[in-house]
Amino acid sequence: MSQSTALAGQSPATRTGFADMLSADDFKSAFRNHPAGVAVITADIGAGPVGLTATSVISVSANPPLVVFSLSSASSSTPTVKLAETVVIHLLGAEQIGLARNFATSGIDRFADTSIWSRLISGEPYLPSANAWLRGRIVNQMSAGDSTVVAVQVLQVDLPGDSGRNAKESRPLVYHNRTWHSLSEDSMVK
Amino acid sequence: MSQSTALAGQSPATRTGFADMLSADDFKSAFRNHPAGVAVITADIGAGPVGLTATSVISVSANPPLVVFSLSSASSSTPTVKLAETVVIHLLGAEQIGLARNFATSGIDRFADTSIWSRLISGEPYLPSANAWLRGRIVNQMSAGDSTVVAVQVLQVDLPGDSGRNAKESRPLVYHNRTWHSLSEDSMVK
Repeated sequence: MSQSTALAGQSPATRTGFADMLSADDFKSAFRNHPAGVAVITADIGAGPVGLTATSVISVSANPPLVVFSLSSASSSTPTVKLAETVVIHLLGAEQIGLARNFATSGIDRFADTSIWSRLISGEPYLPSANAWLRGRIVNQMSAGDSTVVAVQVLQVDLPGDSGRNAKESRPLVYHNRTWHSLSEDSMVK
Repeated sequence: MSQSTALAGQSPATRTGFADMLSADDFKSAFRNHPAGVAVITADIGAGPVGLTATSVISVSANPPLVVFSLSSASSSTPTVKLAETVVIHLLGAEQIGLARNFATSGIDRFADTSIWSRLISGEPYLPSANAWLRGRIVNQMSAGDSTVVAVQVLQVDLPGDSGRNAKESRPLVYHNRTWHSLSEDSMVK
């Protein structure tokens, strides 16, 4: 169903130019200092739930509602998410830092604590305590160097307040330079 | 050079399902509460500089170094950026909130203040005071609903310290719920 499109590195021309001047460390340093919201993406293709913490979720279109995120080939969840028809994207608040850490930890059973997850009626594993979640269908995937860029058409959104959670008490979680932050009135720039 | 790929909305099947349950307002609300780093993207195809503030810049691959961002069809700069061979992506710090506001304002000449911008040797307009900037070549574009997702292979990176700027003094700028924030030790979540 999903199309796979070679995204880059196909033409030798794109590898020349100033590429020799660019250090991979400089590239990583630049983005280490670029802050991002924190999400957990879950899926199940019939072999048990998988989930991973992602700081690459962006909204790209409202009509239709489309979201894009990036999956590293180094993540153990990537093969399953790439095969999934639908995924759930959870947008995390500061109180959910435990979820962010859990789904960023390698070599553990991330679903061992059965109190943190459940199943939607449609079957996907999900995290009921997340600030907000979006369920969507994968509509495209693009190979991009050592990662895959996944495009998701959102079908369903659950927002704070929908289940008795209070949006105003829910401060967002931010990842920056290998540390976790949250936003408040004190962090505002006038 | 760039390929254009239809990303979504091609198949009627992807528009059915739970689409009727999804309110565009709910979708927008979910992402309004999802924080993001702030960037300004500049380009010039020979008809003068253009630039726009973007909160959708993500790093998707380190080998080769690839970045993705989203361009709304509503932005006046979008037609030029889509035609550009190369772009400069500036990652902003809190002290550069003026640049973020300038390049997010419609109906003005965003380059009127000639003290804020210059030209790289390679010709692109750029903002020397930005926290960090990356120059890259557009290697793919994908139509995505009312937006275009642009993939850029990074050729050159300029980091704080490279031009006498001090990385440690440079707190990142964050956009959240229509307000600007910055991160500091006080915003850390332990």
